[in-house]
Amino acid sequence: MTPALSNFPLAHLAVAVNSLADGAALYVALGFTLGEPEVIASQHVRAQVASKGDFRVELLEAHPEGTGPIAKFLEKRGPGIHHIALLSTDVEGDLEKLNDQAIIPLSGYPATGMGGTVVAFLDPKTTGGVLIELVERKS
Amino acid sequence: MTPALSNFPLAHLAVAVNSLADGAALYVALGFTLGEPEVIASQHVRAQVASKGDFRVELLEAHPEGTGPIAKFLEKRGPGIHHIALLSTDVEGDLEKLNDQAIIPLSGYPATGMGGTVVAFLDPKTTGGVLIELVERKS
Repeated sequence: MTPALSNFPLAHLAVAVNSLADGAALYVALGFTLGEPEVIASQHVRAQVASKGDFRVELLEAHPEGTGPIAKFLEKRGPGIHHIALLSTDVEGDLEKLNDQAIIPLSGYPATGMGGTVVAFLDPKTTGGVLIELVERKS
Repeated sequence: MTPALSNFPLAHLAVAVNSLADGAALYVALGFTLGEPEVIASQHVRAQVASKGDFRVELLEAHPEGTGPIAKFLEKRGPGIHHIALLSTDVEGDLEKLNDQAIIPLSGYPATGMGGTVVAFLDPKTTGGVLIELVERKS
């Protein structure tokens, strides 16, 4: 099998929390540094980055409360790891290559993400139950 | 709040799979390099590392089949992200500091992990639903 993607390190690990205020305390205790919360209206989330060295955890709260995919996730299984985000230099091209392996995006993707990125979530039914987000940073 | 831990980057992301053979294919398609499978008898798992750059995914299969915590996880919620492992230079010392924040290990930890490491899993009830493993590499 030929590697399909050229550039794929971990961008962040996303964690669903009931509230950013409660969820962030643990990461502060673990020595992470908190960024400013940012509303991503298109995803119905309010996000806050907790980073330590090169490792970034993105805390996700449903916003407005009770709406969108994070609210659905919390209702179904409670707080915990929601998805992993992998850096891509070409999301559209990577999706074409992944499609050849029967790995497909969720409907509605690619779309615009946090900080003007291009993002695509892959259907976890095609990735062994792991929700994977591809993230392309526009420079 | 004072940072409790001195050194804490991501060691690996652990993913529960029904079988290493099936689970590894996706990561090969994503351009990861596979290591050799290793049985960790004390944890009832067979593990295989898929790495890309500095990012390591540890695939975990129940071993013997149907036994141990991975079998229980698969039965309860199917394949997917099982835990995240964070590097520690002093697991025993870190556990003491975390205890002051009401973050406690699961019973039976610390214990010996893959490759002679010292590992401790933190109780996800005290970490916002995220199963976190501390890993100390003996040099």
